[in-house]
Amino acid sequence: MNDSTTLAAYEKLHARAKEIALVEGATALLNWDEETFMPRGALPFRAEQLAFFSGWTHRQFTAPEVGDWIKACEDHGFAPDSAESANTREWRRSYDRATKLPSELVEEFNRTATLARDAWAEARKRSEFVHFQPHLEKLLQLNRQMADKWGYVECRYDALLDGRERGALASELKTLFAEFRPALVSVLGPAVERSRSVSENFLEADYPIAAQQAFNREVAEAIGFDFNAGRIDTATHPFCTGLGPGDTRMTTRYNERDFTESFYGVLHEAGHGLYDQGLKVEHHGTPLGSACSMGIHESQSRLWENHVGRSVAFWEHWHPRACHHFPTLKKFSPEQIVRAINRVAPSFIRVEADQVTYDLHIILRFELELKLIEGDLKVADLPAMWNEEFEKMLGLKVPDDARGCLQDTHWSLGAFGYFPTYTLGNLNASQLMQRATQDSPQLETELRAGRYANLLGWLREKVHVPGQRHAPQELMRRATGQATHSEPHLAYLRRKFLGA
Amino acid sequence: MNDSTTLAAYEKLHARAKEIALVEGATALLNWDEETFMPRGALPFRAEQLAFFSGWTHRQFTAPEVGDWIKACEDHGFAPDSAESANTREWRRSYDRATKLPSELVEEFNRTATLARDAWAEARKRSEFVHFQPHLEKLLQLNRQMADKWGYVECRYDALLDGRERGALASELKTLFAEFRPALVSVLGPAVERSRSVSENFLEADYPIAAQQAFNREVAEAIGFDFNAGRIDTATHPFCTGLGPGDTRMTTRYNERDFTESFYGVLHEAGHGLYDQGLKVEHHGTPLGSACSMGIHESQSRLWENHVGRSVAFWEHWHPRACHHFPTLKKFSPEQIVRAINRVAPSFIRVEADQVTYDLHIILRFELELKLIEGDLKVADLPAMWNEEFEKMLGLKVPDDARGCLQDTHWSLGAFGYFPTYTLGNLNASQLMQRATQDSPQLETELRAGRYANLLGWLREKVHVPGQRHAPQELMRRATGQATHSEPHLAYLRRKFLGA
Repeated sequence: MNDSTTLAAYEKLHARAKEIALVEGATALLNWDEETFMPRGALPFRAEQLAFFSGWTHRQFTAPEVGDWIKACEDHGFAPDSAESANTREWRRSYDRATKLPSELVEEFNRTATLARDAWAEARKRSEFVHFQPHLEKLLQLNRQMADKWGYVECRYDALLDGRERGALASELKTLFAEFRPALVSVLGPAVERSRSVSENFLEADYPIAAQQAFNREVAEAIGFDFNAGRIDTATHPFCTGLGPGDTRMTTRYNERDFTESFYGVLHEAGHGLYDQGLKVEHHGTPLGSACSMGIHESQSRLWENHVGRSVAFWEHWHPRACHHFPTLKKFSPEQIVRAINRVAPSFIRVEADQVTYDLHIILRFELELKLIEGDLKVADLPAMWNEEFEKMLGLKVPDDARGCLQDTHWSLGAFGYFPTYTLGNLNASQLMQRATQDSPQLETELRAGRYANLLGWLREKVHVPGQRHAPQELMRRATGQATHSEPHLAYLRRKFLGA
Repeated sequence: MNDSTTLAAYEKLHARAKEIALVEGATALLNWDEETFMPRGALPFRAEQLAFFSGWTHRQFTAPEVGDWIKACEDHGFAPDSAESANTREWRRSYDRATKLPSELVEEFNRTATLARDAWAEARKRSEFVHFQPHLEKLLQLNRQMADKWGYVECRYDALLDGRERGALASELKTLFAEFRPALVSVLGPAVERSRSVSENFLEADYPIAAQQAFNREVAEAIGFDFNAGRIDTATHPFCTGLGPGDTRMTTRYNERDFTESFYGVLHEAGHGLYDQGLKVEHHGTPLGSACSMGIHESQSRLWENHVGRSVAFWEHWHPRACHHFPTLKKFSPEQIVRAINRVAPSFIRVEADQVTYDLHIILRFELELKLIEGDLKVADLPAMWNEEFEKMLGLKVPDDARGCLQDTHWSLGAFGYFPTYTLGNLNASQLMQRATQDSPQLETELRAGRYANLLGWLREKVHVPGQRHAPQELMRRATGQATHSEPHLAYLRRKFLGA
């Protein structure tokens, strides 16, 4: 095959990928709309639309000619560091993953997930697990079918995990968490002890929604989120989604008695949003213009939410502006606010958990979903098992399923192997922040002055711009010198919560 | 060809149409989002998406096999009154119209229109016609190309008109308007005279947006709009769009000093919305599940906005609820409000015009766009010609293009042959209302009591449910006994504004 044929094959691949990206952008809008504004009566038609589009993009990407084009590019062998080489490698990986699933299975999965999502919302509202149970059973069965089609070496769960965190294995996560969990628990006791001086609702007051929106927007803008290319709306389960170049949308939810709920929601999603806005527009629709992995994505949200937003430096700078938006906040010093927002205490809801207990919530979910997928736990037994393990881990009796196994949307979307990437995100965030501070010692001074451009610049270069040029662990090694490990995060937690 | 082959052909046509409807629903969402929530930075990508989808649906519908299926259905000959027969007839019509346009022309048109829409918004803001001029020239040129591809007997304009109002001809509209215009003018003088007792800003006061939203929603719900299957948002140019079964979305704009702007905007769009919600879900995606024509659609919005909403009966019933939402309104009696909202006086903005001058605004646009399409008027000369004709017709000097030829969005969307359907809508509304009242003499009593179910029921049966079963003029004949004519509307205007 000569060079001009290879070029033609690459260009055809590229054109197909761009076309698929146009449709995926519309799918993202359909999903965003479903969570934000869609009237409930539209649900059946929306489910049909999403199933149709997922089937369409799947067929477009798995067509035999796509395989031929990828093969032609591989046979040609692009220069190892070229964009073409990285894109070809990732297209091969996705193609192999996608061609193993028949379109009907993909469409059935999407249709099931759309209906399950609604059943879950209703079940959570009524705290009735049985309402959701048959949907979850169907989703697990479809996930197992998909895992079997994809194949795996050690266990079915790995096949699901690989789709979100390339190369990760359940056995490695077990090892990582086996080390991490007791170390976390050793921080937890003393950290809870030190938090006793601050009450649970220390900052409780009236925070009008309009004021929250203004403050959230001001801070998101200050850290670098571009509102000409994005927005914030309201949704039950906060998320951030990229609809295409120039269109990054986050959502949050408001509590009129607690501004921190929407505020840290926005800082978290803005971290995801900055990653999305940092991807190169010219690579949009190709692997080089796509996020590296869930665990890398989550590192960005955790970094801005926790390392930046929950620090003393942050509140020293932002206290006057926060008081401008919420005059009631004047009665608290920056130090009091920092102590309140970093209060450590076991609680039921993952998204409201402090930085120490958070990963225990994740380890629980990882262990349970691993059992569900491997068939070691029946869906009907999930609530009881959840409640038992939760009490062992955090010492609290779960009062109802809404505050137990129904609290998260992920399983209702059919997403298994997703939760552990949150903990990978926490570990990656600490590791990246440690290295950024070593690379730029002036960063700490800048953060105290509310200047975020250099930190964002470092992240742009090391994390955002590469897209999928490297596998997640290779990206971590290039950025920090080491693969993901728990030491930087444990050191950060000990420093922050134990003053050690 | 035997019966089972015909059946298969019809089923394939039907399946293709349903698939296209799924994608068209997504396109409608992309358009709605662009007008309501989309960040500006997303515009170039959105333009690409809309161009891609319009090309895709065009290709899917114009594929040779679709022509074969339609031919097979025609050869078979379904029973004349059957759904299959009406759908086949309309698919033939659309297929012939669509196959005459190459996909590239459709895509170019859509891409041009998306960019023109944005240029127009900017031009209107700055009141600078030159900013919009090249876009309008390009759109006219593309419209002429399209008209030539479609073909016509008398003039190019007819080819454009036919796409919105099946069977209508510029020559017939000229005849209709030649009769209608002087009759309108004869009402105008005395109506203006009778309005002198009420000042322009008679109702001006503070009407908080939240209160407007609550009142608008309450009335829209009362006339029958289903909010489980629809919503109201904010947009510069109010519109109503059907995104699919269970998903009808209207928009309005708010003026804090004048609640009538958003209120009558909502009543108008709710009229469109009720039509959309009245189409049969089981026919969705086929001609029988689609609105008959623009002129029929507009009859529904005018009927609810004007015949219902601007009547004495309406305000007798709704005065207490309006005062509940706007306590400031208590100082006006229902009679005063009715006189204020029916004040007749020439003004610049079409969408704010009273019921007497409104159709003069339309006749002006019809005459100008006819000249633009036929090449009898240069785009560069449009503002001057607009201003000259406007002054002749309504006696006012246009102060700037924002209040002149830049005020409407239609031309920026490349929509020519659209404006006259507004006047057809006014005539149809009066004709339908006259007949509904003859058919159900108790209607007037019901309207005074705020009961709309029988009126809506009559419209459902005569106008909504048939979809495109009949051509517009056939629908009018079946519903009222006559084709569209101006007498019922003139009689209504004389009764209402001259007490004649």
